[in-house]
Amino acid sequence: MAQPELSPILRGALDAFYEKGFRGTTVRDISQRAGVAMPTLYYYHGNKEGIFTALLECATKDFLARAYAARDEGGDKPEVRLAYVVESILLRTLIGPRMVALEPDIRYLSAPNRDRFERVRTGVERLLLGIVREGRRRGLFTVSDPVLTTRALLDMCDAVPSWYVECPPKYHAVAQKYGAIALNAVGYRADG
Amino acid sequence: MAQPELSPILRGALDAFYEKGFRGTTVRDISQRAGVAMPTLYYYHGNKEGIFTALLECATKDFLARAYAARDEGGDKPEVRLAYVVESILLRTLIGPRMVALEPDIRYLSAPNRDRFERVRTGVERLLLGIVREGRRRGLFTVSDPVLTTRALLDMCDAVPSWYVECPPKYHAVAQKYGAIALNAVGYRADG
Repeated sequence: MAQPELSPILRGALDAFYEKGFRGTTVRDISQRAGVAMPTLYYYHGNKEGIFTALLECATKDFLARAYAARDEGGDKPEVRLAYVVESILLRTLIGPRMVALEPDIRYLSAPNRDRFERVRTGVERLLLGIVREGRRRGLFTVSDPVLTTRALLDMCDAVPSWYVECPPKYHAVAQKYGAIALNAVGYRADG
Repeated sequence: MAQPELSPILRGALDAFYEKGFRGTTVRDISQRAGVAMPTLYYYHGNKEGIFTALLECATKDFLARAYAARDEGGDKPEVRLAYVVESILLRTLIGPRMVALEPDIRYLSAPNRDRFERVRTGVERLLLGIVREGRRRGLFTVSDPVLTTRALLDMCDAVPSWYVECPPKYHAVAQKYGAIALNAVGYRADG
């Protein structure tokens, strides 16, 4: 998952939004950082929300499809599926931790844009919950509250971009370890 | 842990910061919401950062001391200590989820203030890590990476205020369930 090419506008916008948050950033900030005149910004993206959603689009593109693909790669084993999906959630950060770190600001968007990006997160949550429930049904996971545990797993994955700063090769190791932590959290016992 | 009494200034500030974030809020916003003149705000708190840190002070007050007390209540059993400390981290949200949800904006503060509040989080992380390592040393926890797992546990606890909106009695149940999820995550086996 390579870092996507961002236009100069979006590169400037990423710097501004990351530093000041969605609410604290003005179109003027972005114009200055991008070295692009304000009318050009308005022409391409309409307004500040348009610029922000264009960035989020890069951050969430294919996220759900990749999570489904990871699940299917896990074949019929809930424990492999869970580990693979958790890894896919983390590996997404490789597109750029700063870009993924913008996502909490989704709550500031207007309803149609908010819904669009929240559907991605809801979709991943539903996918993960299905795996947790299936593992529990088959007696592989001893988890007592699948809904709350799934939420906790997603939260712990979502927080990684806010502190992770190291290089990609090590990041793969972190992603795999998170797969193992997730398996513990659902009470998977290899010898169960 | 009762909701602390906030001054009218801080109540207005909480509304403003919660809605617009630290960077997006102006002293004028706070003045309007609090119904308090700007010179009065400056007199009591110096500037916007002063107002924000006064709120954080309420949110983090006694946090570390309560976490230590929870650990000590767990006696000599790492599994009880871990569950109690995780519960104490969650119960803190009862002072007001909106107040705790301001904490990610600590990164926008000037270094001395940032350090002061980050020391609280670092302290809780160190406390939790000590328990995880002790449980592992005694063969009670099978966790393979105590540092990363402790980080994941804290992250999952920290995210709760951002989605939890229900009433306090149910919140205690959530806190206890998080204690159980944490025990799973470190690979605790009651029959181990």
